Amino acid sequence: MTGLDDLPIRDDLRGRSPYGAPQLDVAVRLNTNENSYRVPEPVVEAIGKALAAELRDLNRYPDRDAVALRADLAGYLGHGITAAQVWAANGSNEIQQQLLQAFGGPGRSALGFVPAYSMHPLLALGTGTRWVPAQRGVDFGLTADEAVAEVRTHRPDVVFLCSPNNPTGTALDPAVVTAVLDVAPGMVVVDEAYAEFARPGTSDALALLPGHPRLVVTRTMSKAFGFAGGRLGYLVADPAVVAAVQLVRLPYHLSSLTQAAARAALAHRDALLGTVDAIKAQRDRIVGTLRDRGFRVADSDANFVLFAVGGDQATAWRTLLDAGVLVRDVGLPGWLRVTAGTPAETDAFLTAMEKLS
Amino acid sequence: MTGLDDLPIRDDLRGRSPYGAPQLDVAVRLNTNENSYRVPEPVVEAIGKALAAELRDLNRYPDRDAVALRADLAGYLGHGITAAQVWAANGSNEIQQQLLQAFGGPGRSALGFVPAYSMHPLLALGTGTRWVPAQRGVDFGLTADEAVAEVRTHRPDVVFLCSPNNPTGTALDPAVVTAVLDVAPGMVVVDEAYAEFARPGTSDALALLPGHPRLVVTRTMSKAFGFAGGRLGYLVADPAVVAAVQLVRLPYHLSSLTQAAARAALAHRDALLGTVDAIKAQRDRIVGTLRDRGFRVADSDANFVLFAVGGDQATAWRTLLDAGVLVRDVGLPGWLRVTAGTPAETDAFLTAMEKLS
Repeated sequence: MTGLDDLPIRDDLRGRSPYGAPQLDVAVRLNTNENSYRVPEPVVEAIGKALAAELRDLNRYPDRDAVALRADLAGYLGHGITAAQVWAANGSNEIQQQLLQAFGGPGRSALGFVPAYSMHPLLALGTGTRWVPAQRGVDFGLTADEAVAEVRTHRPDVVFLCSPNNPTGTALDPAVVTAVLDVAPGMVVVDEAYAEFARPGTSDALALLPGHPRLVVTRTMSKAFGFAGGRLGYLVADPAVVAAVQLVRLPYHLSSLTQAAARAALAHRDALLGTVDAIKAQRDRIVGTLRDRGFRVADSDANFVLFAVGGDQATAWRTLLDAGVLVRDVGLPGWLRVTAGTPAETDAFLTAMEKLS
Repeated sequence: MTGLDDLPIRDDLRGRSPYGAPQLDVAVRLNTNENSYRVPEPVVEAIGKALAAELRDLNRYPDRDAVALRADLAGYLGHGITAAQVWAANGSNEIQQQLLQAFGGPGRSALGFVPAYSMHPLLALGTGTRWVPAQRGVDFGLTADEAVAEVRTHRPDVVFLCSPNNPTGTALDPAVVTAVLDVAPGMVVVDEAYAEFARPGTSDALALLPGHPRLVVTRTMSKAFGFAGGRLGYLVADPAVVAAVQLVRLPYHLSSLTQAAARAALAHRDALLGTVDAIKAQRDRIVGTLRDRGFRVADSDANFVLFAVGGDQATAWRTLLDAGVLVRDVGLPGWLRVTAGTPAETDAFLTAMEKLS
């Protein structure tokens, strides 16, 4: 039988395992930061109707440039953003891969401040971009001075910032973004996958776009919109950035079904985003309860919480799993990440956490 | 205003234009090798039902490994092929991009025999793979000796073969594939996007898979299945090849909607593939009629026909467009490509062609 090692795969892929959280059949799954709320019935009907309108014409290729969807996304974002500033793909992973294909790649480098979204280095690997892991402090913070120093030292072609950061959950001060923009020699990508969950008073990077043609903000409908299964990520930037990714995007990358379903979801955004406040309440409840119990917990602007288990995190992960709750071991010694979902899921998690007290 | 040249895009992208046929509002569009037949009503209903069953759970990520869909594709293919030998993605473009990420990339090379599918060199560019364009003869043929000589000379990490070849339309003798497999130092990818349209007695490369772990056959549902808007491409190979692309695939690349719609389409394959014979009849009619009128025409095993216009092809393309028929100028001096569609579309095309006689 042929094994992976018998094939001429790239040397830098040898010995690696596919990315992905273990998908286990557990009652309470709080490991992938999904939105725990099912799609509301009126939205189900609207998406179903929008899809039905596409089916007879599936023999035709989709709109290669997804013009109508991009206009709808621009309308959702506000800030005077236009369709020409928006680009969409199958998840923000594909968006970020396209950015690295256009602005990174062989002979170029991308820098991130780890721990951050663990796909960033894998996207760099997959696009032949050299990855530079700059370190955060012990509290996972990132100041403007620290960020500027790393960018000045390494002069990366692409800087990834993450706000709120995953897996730590804390939003970034926009002053850090502007400081990095001032010194970065290349593109600055702010990954805002969880932006809609930010605490009151938190700013996103959209307001920084005017006058910063090298700034790219990436977003997703997977989290706040509860649209993870629909796969829709997007970027917002100067129209020239959109023109750049169009040089590397696969033609017809976004199916007619994806475009129609996402447009219907955006049209019913009030119903879908109605879960955000409920999730934030559970997020704050998890943070508060764990702190009351004496755990160290990172500030969270996202739909998840990073907490210190007071010992080996792999053992603690197993203890919680045995208690019927699946959380995420993101590989940070001593820390675990839990998704904020429904009140019942929070109940189950906080009960399971009593085993760690 | 910021232009593309003001951004730090890769040098090898500077001055390029996005890939894609012009999308013009013309009555008869025979330029992208779509299947001209709309999806039949019973299949529309079945796909709609399958999609509806997914909508409530769109808050959850899709099956990362698309296990059920891959099993269905294996069942369709026969030849004793199993789900472990099949991998699916958003079109065969994404399949081939993943293959280049795993087996090509920086410091590696991919070779194709041009003219062939024009995305192959662009996928090489997008993945940092050096592209080696080997030439076909004046009749667009490719013998085993010619192919072997090029592979021996350039020793590419990936060889692309195309059967039936696009844009020429002619299927490849499987003896060429086995001869290339015997001498290729790396992977051999046979792009069979149009396999279902082959003339009687034409062999595909699936039968060559046993004993050839470096052979990859790529297919699509865009053409014969009339599922271009659904975006579903796939590969068939040794299970180790599937394991290799899983190292580079984006997690959750294939939406729940795509997986469900493709499975429903496969379940109704008799209805969908029912158009293939009708399209082949129009293809043969185009070939026969043009030859009767004295045009040089390439043999076609696909749903399109490459024909010599007897002069400048850009002028001829415009003449046909002015007559209301959009065909494809693939950049081959003196030749144009036309999709075989409905009898009425063939009528319109053959009437327009009278302007070129």
